Amino acid sequence: MVTRRVADILKNGQPDELATIKGWVRTKRELKGFSFIEVNDGSSLAGLQAVLDADLPDYENIIKQLSTGASVEIEGKLVESPGKGQKIEMKGESVIVYGTADPETYPLQKKRHSFEFLRTISHLRSRTNTLGAVFRVRNACATAIHQFFQEKGFLWIHSPIITASDCEGAGELFTVTNFDLNKLPKNDGGEIDYSQDFFGKQAYLTVSGQLQAEVMAMAFQNVYTFGPTFRAENSNTSRHLAEFWMVEPEMAFCDLEGDQNLAEEFLKYIFKYVLDNCAEDIEFFNKWVNKSLLETADNIINNEFERVTYTEAVALLEKATKKFEFPVEWGIDLQSEHERYLAEDLFKKPVIVTNYPKDIKAFYMRLDEGEKTVSAMDILAPGIGEIIGGSQREERLDVLERRIKEMNIEADDIWWYLDLRRYGTVPHAGFGLGFERLVQFITGMTNIRDVIPFPRTPLSADF
Amino acid sequence: MVTRRVADILKNGQPDELATIKGWVRTKRELKGFSFIEVNDGSSLAGLQAVLDADLPDYENIIKQLSTGASVEIEGKLVESPGKGQKIEMKGESVIVYGTADPETYPLQKKRHSFEFLRTISHLRSRTNTLGAVFRVRNACATAIHQFFQEKGFLWIHSPIITASDCEGAGELFTVTNFDLNKLPKNDGGEIDYSQDFFGKQAYLTVSGQLQAEVMAMAFQNVYTFGPTFRAENSNTSRHLAEFWMVEPEMAFCDLEGDQNLAEEFLKYIFKYVLDNCAEDIEFFNKWVNKSLLETADNIINNEFERVTYTEAVALLEKATKKFEFPVEWGIDLQSEHERYLAEDLFKKPVIVTNYPKDIKAFYMRLDEGEKTVSAMDILAPGIGEIIGGSQREERLDVLERRIKEMNIEADDIWWYLDLRRYGTVPHAGFGLGFERLVQFITGMTNIRDVIPFPRTPLSADF
Repeated sequence: MVTRRVADILKNGQPDELATIKGWVRTKRELKGFSFIEVNDGSSLAGLQAVLDADLPDYENIIKQLSTGASVEIEGKLVESPGKGQKIEMKGESVIVYGTADPETYPLQKKRHSFEFLRTISHLRSRTNTLGAVFRVRNACATAIHQFFQEKGFLWIHSPIITASDCEGAGELFTVTNFDLNKLPKNDGGEIDYSQDFFGKQAYLTVSGQLQAEVMAMAFQNVYTFGPTFRAENSNTSRHLAEFWMVEPEMAFCDLEGDQNLAEEFLKYIFKYVLDNCAEDIEFFNKWVNKSLLETADNIINNEFERVTYTEAVALLEKATKKFEFPVEWGIDLQSEHERYLAEDLFKKPVIVTNYPKDIKAFYMRLDEGEKTVSAMDILAPGIGEIIGGSQREERLDVLERRIKEMNIEADDIWWYLDLRRYGTVPHAGFGLGFERLVQFITGMTNIRDVIPFPRTPLSADF
Repeated sequence: MVTRRVADILKNGQPDELATIKGWVRTKRELKGFSFIEVNDGSSLAGLQAVLDADLPDYENIIKQLSTGASVEIEGKLVESPGKGQKIEMKGESVIVYGTADPETYPLQKKRHSFEFLRTISHLRSRTNTLGAVFRVRNACATAIHQFFQEKGFLWIHSPIITASDCEGAGELFTVTNFDLNKLPKNDGGEIDYSQDFFGKQAYLTVSGQLQAEVMAMAFQNVYTFGPTFRAENSNTSRHLAEFWMVEPEMAFCDLEGDQNLAEEFLKYIFKYVLDNCAEDIEFFNKWVNKSLLETADNIINNEFERVTYTEAVALLEKATKKFEFPVEWGIDLQSEHERYLAEDLFKKPVIVTNYPKDIKAFYMRLDEGEKTVSAMDILAPGIGEIIGGSQREERLDVLERRIKEMNIEADDIWWYLDLRRYGTVPHAGFGLGFERLVQFITGMTNIRDVIPFPRTPLSADF
């Protein structure tokens, strides 16, 4: 008999079809003469209700074993459901119990659990409604990202995880080593002799694949990275992970305007894809997690993003009647309260702020005329704040060399990056999207630890 | 005027269409009264030939700048090409030179370069024919993998990169730390106090996402990982990388046969996808890198893989008239020469060897009846050897606990993995594919360092 996924049966199942389902029991209701078993196989939020008749062979024993969490295979016939909330159910004809889940010790009983508690059982929490929905949406976001770029002819490139260059993440880098820390080799001066380490020098976990993406864009025009990145930042907050996934497109022959256009189209595409492909999950989040979720999604998809320069944004903030904790003046880094005011109060839709003061931005961003600002952009979204940061890159060798010197970056470490400006340099631009922030944004989950299967944070690398 | 990619023009361009192309000069031929400029933008192996007439404004100066490697934008009209090798070319009407590439110093002149030399300029090598083709094929392989699994309803899950469990990779693990190695905190006993490290304990880079994939399969039925993994193995060979990407599907309610079926279908799908989508690149490899490439691909796509048990394979090897360097007897790990004999000489097609002796396989593989072998499988392919390794997993708690004890693995480290057998355990199986091995296999490239953009190997983490 054909094995079907629950999502398929709920969507396409017809009365009188025979099928087998395999999954885990979510709930059991024993009535006189029969029982309802809700079986979930992870393909959808809703499970399939199976009705088991008391005249099934070994009924008593089977029902006893089918407590929440037990794994089961049920063969049977689909029938119209007389109950509310589902149109189809299964009349079970034979049942195999693969594994039980002792109700005395199985931690996921029917009651609601805090997300905090669920993090202590990350190996089981995906079996709950909310986390199940989160990881289906996470997968849909990832699929949308690949589909968006592949349709446009971008190559997915794998930037390195281990890197010997620390020019971007000073102070927040994890060290990668093959040394036995109890027997560190020292040189004559008493310093650690990194030439004896695996890579022959100090090595770190990457904080961004952008510089390498630029390399590849200079050969393939349009590329993107989608991989893990790391920050050894001791921030125990609901917004920080030590290990998180980033998406970083990079486009040759592209300026700041093209960058903004792509980023806006990209966000709209992902939201639309997820609404189309995870409607049930998103409705669940909208009902139980954040009631303005669908409104926000609609806002993203159907509005042209507002575009203002940093200088204009500062003027607008200075004019605001709202009192800010951090005073506004030209030159400051915008704080969360400022970003939220712009996106939520003033424009009530996503805002792209461009051309930030050069002193608060990275060395590789293109210096604007007048040399006060750089061609950077941040996308601020209602309800979440900054979701994307990008820039046109400095493609002029002399300007880049000057900036590197001003910012005390060791040119020797990035000789290859400078070479890109020496041989066939072109205007180019790109942006970065924190993947977990995106999943938070779309699901409304307030803690970033709940949108990645196995979060890595200070003092925690369990599972 | 509309900007088009070169691949699109070569495939769909029609005479008299106007277009703009942006890319890098590969070759320049100056003739009397006009010049041929071949422009490549990374979208295809072949570039587009642009003909620039000497009566263009500033012709002499432009032509001088358009040496190999220069970046250029050319606007013009498509015309039928009188030359051999292309049916369409562009008659340039205006030219912008973005960046030059001094022929005195630009390392990629027209002559052929060794792959070894190209590795020293990994930031430029993607601009060569071969490496360009490699990374287009790499992207196609990656896209095929996602497409295959997504079509089947598998979720892409991100297994953690940083892990505190070392049960799989003893001795070959990179340490991840936030310590200043010059000031390691020690406890009273003079040992390093890892409780003060970022994660509160010793942490490593992952060697496999399988255990975490099993967690997710117990909630979503079918999942796959596709991410970086690490081995601190001091092997300076053409087959080893310290950092490489792995694909690891995991299926609940699946046995060893289902595992083999999926792996066979998977390999065929990828080969077919790449042949369909990168025909020009594959023909190039078949002509210049490995002349049996298309034959191998055909062999993979159109043959039912042979399936033999390890015990049968050993009997076949013992009967072989071929002399092996390593003598064959039941219990040995098959050597490369044995694997090649089976796939290349005996069956002349891919062979799946199953049910290996338990002592040469991992603790998590399911113990067969008789307890001598485990439900493992390796796929051996002609011309490459082992390409996939997988197994049905031990789902029986008591058996797994016994095996862990026998193999001196610390049960406390994987309490959560054991929990999967405690609550709703099911038969399940999966496999692992080394992504770079696959790209080598499909392209024929002999050194694994030439199929990943920025290889990490002993003493080398450049770029």
